[in-house]
Amino acid sequence: MILNGPNLNLLGTREPDVYGHDTLDDICGRLEDEAQTLGVRLDMRQSNHEGHLIDWLHESSSTGAKAVILNPGGLTHTSIALRDAIAGIEVPVLEVHLSNTHARESFRRRSHVSPVAKGVIAGLGAHGYSLALQAAAAL
Amino acid sequence: MILNGPNLNLLGTREPDVYGHDTLDDICGRLEDEAQTLGVRLDMRQSNHEGHLIDWLHESSSTGAKAVILNPGGLTHTSIALRDAIAGIEVPVLEVHLSNTHARESFRRRSHVSPVAKGVIAGLGAHGYSLALQAAAAL
Amino acid sequence: MILNGPNLNLLGTREPDVYGHDTLDDICGRLEDEAQTLGVRLDMRQSNHEGHLIDWLHESSSTGAKAVILNPGGLTHTSIALRDAIAGIEVPVLEVHLSNTHARESFRRRSHVSPVAKGVIAGLGAHGYSLALQAAAAL
Amino acid sequence: MILNGPNLNLLGTREPDVYGHDTLDDICGRLEDEAQTLGVRLDMRQSNHEGHLIDWLHESSSTGAKAVILNPGGLTHTSIALRDAIAGIEVPVLEVHLSNTHARESFRRRSHVSPVAKGVIAGLGAHGYSLALQAAAAL
Amino acid sequence: MILNGPNLNLLGTREPDVYGHDTLDDICGRLEDEAQTLGVRLDMRQSNHEGHLIDWLHESSSTGAKAVILNPGGLTHTSIALRDAIAGIEVPVLEVHLSNTHARESFRRRSHVSPVAKGVIAGLGAHGYSLALQAAAAL
Amino acid sequence: MILNGPNLNLLGTREPDVYGHDTLDDICGRLEDEAQTLGVRLDMRQSNHEGHLIDWLHESSSTGAKAVILNPGGLTHTSIALRDAIAGIEVPVLEVHLSNTHARESFRRRSHVSPVAKGVIAGLGAHGYSLALQAAAAL
Amino acid sequence: MILNGPNLNLLGTREPDVYGHDTLDDICGRLEDEAQTLGVRLDMRQSNHEGHLIDWLHESSSTGAKAVILNPGGLTHTSIALRDAIAGIEVPVLEVHLSNTHARESFRRRSHVSPVAKGVIAGLGAHGYSLALQAAAAL
Amino acid sequence: MILNGPNLNLLGTREPDVYGHDTLDDICGRLEDEAQTLGVRLDMRQSNHEGHLIDWLHESSSTGAKAVILNPGGLTHTSIALRDAIAGIEVPVLEVHLSNTHARESFRRRSHVSPVAKGVIAGLGAHGYSLALQAAAAL
Amino acid sequence: MILNGPNLNLLGTREPDVYGHDTLDDICGRLEDEAQTLGVRLDMRQSNHEGHLIDWLHESSSTGAKAVILNPGGLTHTSIALRDAIAGIEVPVLEVHLSNTHARESFRRRSHVSPVAKGVIAGLGAHGYSLALQAAAAL
Amino acid sequence: MILNGPNLNLLGTREPDVYGHDTLDDICGRLEDEAQTLGVRLDMRQSNHEGHLIDWLHESSSTGAKAVILNPGGLTHTSIALRDAIAGIEVPVLEVHLSNTHARESFRRRSHVSPVAKGVIAGLGAHGYSLALQAAAAL
Amino acid sequence: MILNGPNLNLLGTREPDVYGHDTLDDICGRLEDEAQTLGVRLDMRQSNHEGHLIDWLHESSSTGAKAVILNPGGLTHTSIALRDAIAGIEVPVLEVHLSNTHARESFRRRSHVSPVAKGVIAGLGAHGYSLALQAAAAL
Amino acid sequence: MILNGPNLNLLGTREPDVYGHDTLDDICGRLEDEAQTLGVRLDMRQSNHEGHLIDWLHESSSTGAKAVILNPGGLTHTSIALRDAIAGIEVPVLEVHLSNTHARESFRRRSHVSPVAKGVIAGLGAHGYSLALQAAAAL
Repeated sequence: MILNGPNLNLLGTREPDVYGHDTLDDICGRLEDEAQTLGVRLDMRQSNHEGHLIDWLHESSSTGAKAVILNPGGLTHTSIALRDAIAGIEVPVLEVHLSNTHARESFRRRSHVSPVAKGVIAGLGAHGYSLALQAAAAL
Repeated sequence: MILNGPNLNLLGTREPDVYGHDTLDDICGRLEDEAQTLGVRLDMRQSNHEGHLIDWLHESSSTGAKAVILNPGGLTHTSIALRDAIAGIEVPVLEVHLSNTHARESFRRRSHVSPVAKGVIAGLGAHGYSLALQAAAAL
Repeated sequence: MILNGPNLNLLGTREPDVYGHDTLDDICGRLEDEAQTLGVRLDMRQSNHEGHLIDWLHESSSTGAKAVILNPGGLTHTSIALRDAIAGIEVPVLEVHLSNTHARESFRRRSHVSPVAKGVIAGLGAHGYSLALQAAAAL
Repeated sequence: MILNGPNLNLLGTREPDVYGHDTLDDICGRLEDEAQTLGVRLDMRQSNHEGHLIDWLHESSSTGAKAVILNPGGLTHTSIALRDAIAGIEVPVLEVHLSNTHARESFRRRSHVSPVAKGVIAGLGAHGYSLALQAAAAL
Repeated sequence: MILNGPNLNLLGTREPDVYGHDTLDDICGRLEDEAQTLGVRLDMRQSNHEGHLIDWLHESSSTGAKAVILNPGGLTHTSIALRDAIAGIEVPVLEVHLSNTHARESFRRRSHVSPVAKGVIAGLGAHGYSLALQAAAAL
Repeated sequence: MILNGPNLNLLGTREPDVYGHDTLDDICGRLEDEAQTLGVRLDMRQSNHEGHLIDWLHESSSTGAKAVILNPGGLTHTSIALRDAIAGIEVPVLEVHLSNTHARESFRRRSHVSPVAKGVIAGLGAHGYSLALQAAAAL
Repeated sequence: MILNGPNLNLLGTREPDVYGHDTLDDICGRLEDEAQTLGVRLDMRQSNHEGHLIDWLHESSSTGAKAVILNPGGLTHTSIALRDAIAGIEVPVLEVHLSNTHARESFRRRSHVSPVAKGVIAGLGAHGYSLALQAAAAL
Repeated sequence: MILNGPNLNLLGTREPDVYGHDTLDDICGRLEDEAQTLGVRLDMRQSNHEGHLIDWLHESSSTGAKAVILNPGGLTHTSIALRDAIAGIEVPVLEVHLSNTHARESFRRRSHVSPVAKGVIAGLGAHGYSLALQAAAAL
Repeated sequence: MILNGPNLNLLGTREPDVYGHDTLDDICGRLEDEAQTLGVRLDMRQSNHEGHLIDWLHESSSTGAKAVILNPGGLTHTSIALRDAIAGIEVPVLEVHLSNTHARESFRRRSHVSPVAKGVIAGLGAHGYSLALQAAAAL
Repeated sequence: MILNGPNLNLLGTREPDVYGHDTLDDICGRLEDEAQTLGVRLDMRQSNHEGHLIDWLHESSSTGAKAVILNPGGLTHTSIALRDAIAGIEVPVLEVHLSNTHARESFRRRSHVSPVAKGVIAGLGAHGYSLALQAAAAL
Repeated sequence: MILNGPNLNLLGTREPDVYGHDTLDDICGRLEDEAQTLGVRLDMRQSNHEGHLIDWLHESSSTGAKAVILNPGGLTHTSIALRDAIAGIEVPVLEVHLSNTHARESFRRRSHVSPVAKGVIAGLGAHGYSLALQAAAAL
Repeated sequence: MILNGPNLNLLGTREPDVYGHDTLDDICGRLEDEAQTLGVRLDMRQSNHEGHLIDWLHESSSTGAKAVILNPGGLTHTSIALRDAIAGIEVPVLEVHLSNTHARESFRRRSHVSPVAKGVIAGLGAHGYSLALQAAAAL
């Protein structure tokens, strides 16, 4: 399961200097190819609602997902509820950011998600999802 | 009205060392018995969406609820919108936490809800709901 | 497009000393008259869900709105996702607050929205929407 | 054992808007009735001396008290020695505050006692002692 | 009365990217036309001396001005004496900033003036004065 | 009533550069002469125990003292219980410090007592007691 | 020499709850009587300009004043230049505040003047000037 | 003179993982043997009252003690009065902690006592007292 | 070029719970195999000296390395000189941490390296090096 | 143009340990000789008024000065208006301090002027002006 | 093994008021005598390079040293790499400081070494090494 | 002696916008000419190792250098060991920075070196070395 948080539906149009020109669908397509190669099944979703991301994390647990790749967007820095959702399930969560959050505004340096994530990949653009997919497959 | 915030639907499975083994349904069943004894009516809900909790707080006001018992979960520490919702209604709100939030991570020490709540009960597990119910009945 | 955040549906009943006696419908009615005079079309919405506000901001972009007037309520001070939504669209956003947020609690002094807004009008009550409407029409 | 810290002997005369009109003796009388109903024995004391409270906490341990209900007054926010006394004994301690300390001055938000207390009840006036008594009896 | 603080005499030459190309005289001319339409009298001044601004605020009170529109420039963030002058008179003060102070250096985010101002308009360039004039006329 | 906190019994021997060569008895003698001139009765005490100071403040209230002159010594900066004792009585309290606490270590700049004191006199040595006595007589 | 900073010319009209009903002239008259009794000469001035206060402090030094009584008003909390002026002259300076600055907004707690003043008197209204006059005469 | 602060009477029973299994009496016995070897006289005391520790420090000065070994317990981090007592006497004070205070909660890192102590020994258990005794004998 | 900072030579023996059982040589062996597959050349070094890491970063630039994979160890959080070295060369740097630094002590959350790194991979153990190698090959 | 801020007229008499024995006139005389050698014209002024310094900076711009050497005195640390004046003109500004401001009180470490100055010279006494003059001539 | 960090080679010449007149060789000589008495072998080294200290700590582990006495000098407050080196070996480390670091500049109060050290001895001059040696022998 | 810290060997290639196009050798050549004119001998070195800089500072003291000109690079902001080395020698140290460190990232504003340096020159590029050379010659 790959979950994307607020504003990631804008990918390709939103600040392309920072986030690249690929849309979320472009990325999803490539990832599905890679997933097939790795022999894993993929379920990629996006929502601007914190509550949906929490619901989906719970769902990943009850449906026995092997791992969750999560790009929490702006919620990374503000949502303790999201943090609790990750801590409350057994499924390992890999946190991915397209941009290098440490090289941007200072309020993007604090992540509520990282302390409960299995690992973090940031700043490598859409390629970060591929690496996370490999890491998830190797868990 | 008893409102439960994000991740409280996981009760019984999520970190049982911290939150106990009872599910929210177990707790609800016991509370309904106690409510009957106290002669009050109970309406217990849970959502992972901040917006729903705010909607329900507004609803409690327009339906003339006597009091609201609120366990805001992780939103306790981050939601000013929830705080404003409580300040914006006349209905007294009792804040309940299963765990002793002060004995955990430092970011759990700040509550945006407490300053506008009528009172706070924390660290007494599911028994805290019963005490809050009594307090609400005695208002 | 005029977007209103959490608890603004309570206007007229919620802390009238701070927010005045007009309901959101009263204000909306007056603004539509003024909009007609200015020759602009108006679409006024309210939600207690952060996610809806983000969805609507995206929608304003794809439907080619000239400007958005946004009163983010309590989310002003906590939502980086909202900030990212504004930064992610081309449409200029005018931030409006009914009360003078600087004269209230210290946590209301930080706005995540202001740094990406075109301008800010605060403390002038419902009249602030009218001024923002003029400013939007003049952009 | 119910221990009361500095200035609680002023109850009924001190800032009645904040603390109510009951004296400590009034409260004590009611609690003894309730204790009898619950079948537990009560020993209620008050001191303006941090040292006495620490001595009494030690005493509660050596005399095998089942629980201590503690209202540390102004020492809540400043006494690490009191915190160490609680951590140093096996007896569970329930922290009670008459007023909602979170709704007052910011320096009252930090409690040195809460992290080592079993639970916290605040803002419910003298009724808070009754609830703590029940919780203590149920331990 | 419209008061302008330090460096606003440079308008039109100083950092035109941030402050626009209009001089203070250009703006003043336009505002006088608008004031005539609104039927109010205007007295626009500028000084680089904190003391003059305070003197003028006192004068506005003793001459019975209906309102003061104040752009305190760099004193916004440092002058408690200016704040006290505003708090010490009955005349309502509207704070105006040409640029969006929240989108600039972090030390520009704190305003000593805003907490005692009637309202704040920022980031709308010279147009902000016109909106403030309307708001003042409508008081 | 004149109350002196911890270490003031050392006066005359402790760091004479900072606190002068007069002992507390020397000062007391002179003050009693001045009190007689002013027609007021004096009761000067010293303790190293926070609890005694709180007990005495309560006593001043129940014996109908006209005012209390308080030099809280090192407790000035740490005791919220002392602050609550002052806030809990009707008797006005004048805070006196022999040394200029603002010219010393930074932790001496915060006073928990000042916000609830009627007034503060600091840095004028033993003469500060005389001035406080006059101020108390003039209340 | 008695120097008064910004807004003290408003005394008697400005926030009388905080500052009393006496004008600066009323106070000056009374102080001149007291000065005559003490056999000292008085020169009382007021300005809203930081620069004038600094000029006058220098003047006090070159004209051999025995002491300066200074009420720096809002500059207390912001002016390091004023602090340097006091540190740069030999004349002892007594800092006086009409209100108890510690009982007001938190930004009023820091004084740049106190660390270089001989002593501080605050919260005793206009009577504070009289006490300072005595203290100055006794130096 | 060896002074022990709050909760050190619990030694041997309180959190033995942190503080060891020796009681204060056990330690005292061993130290007296060592003192005899070193040819010095020992007076070991314990109190849970800040005031007693201050009284005893004063006493050490008036009875001409050569040095004081002080374990201030939880008062280390909160008592400026204790600090002032040490600064106010000529007797050198050696600060001892059984546990390594730096390896525990962050609030234990600040010591009000260390800046005025002659030296500090921490983390070496009861053996720390022996080393301090040697250091005191060698002064 | 793969550079490893202080203490990474201890890998396999140092806190295996945190860092795993593989030695740096084990990891290096596997990476060389992977590098061969990817058709890139590898040069893996380790030093406990900040200066050497800086020298090597400069060397990577002058020898035309395609990318540097850097695990700065404890220097991550303290070395601005290392940051400047990275900013001073054109070669892109990928930052790798074996453990999830965000889930550890708070002082490990600040990275001086991340803001100038191309990307960051943390918490995935030795597998993180492999992913970084792929990312480097794909640049 | 060489501008000197508050209290620099006291040079030679004010704290000579910190600032040296030369008066501003002595320094000015020497600098004029040096200026003649360098073939540049000098205009040296001093004021205790922030407003004058700002006026003069504007004047330097309109009269086409090649550079300004500015010793802002105590305003260095507090005046954002001064900072804005420097940022608002094209003329390069060299900041000079007689004393090493970093070796003094901590509030002297923050300079609002340095970030917009061309360069800074501090701690070299009156010689610093000469070096700045050279640097200005070499621009 | 006794390791000394930066600048300790200056002992005897550097700020003798703070550090005493003994050179490191003098101290070493005395310690070797004491070590012989205690029946332990000593290896005392000094370096100004952080990297060497880390190398030596690793070496102490691989050569089976019983304990390390470490005076990290100025690295105490800045080196997380040193901290990690200590945490990464099994050998217990005793931290020694000649001066009382708590009585000096505030930045010397934070020690990165103390939280992972076995114990800390500070402020007792060269004698502190002897006490540490004893403590090490007694481990 | 002129000492240059980490990354200054990159001069001429590293971020030429910030640091200019001259290499360290270019600068050194020019300085040697100037030194000859001034009749002083020059020894210019560079290292990326903190330890070497400390060693060299010690060497300057034992070889009787008249002054040291030090550009500590990134160590400026992090090295207390460097600070101690400067404080531990008698030789005066002049701190030079090519860029205006105050106009860059906020972490570059704190200098551990400045408080113990004789003076500071920043922002004047390579010309700053010349000015420092003159100042050193004039000591």
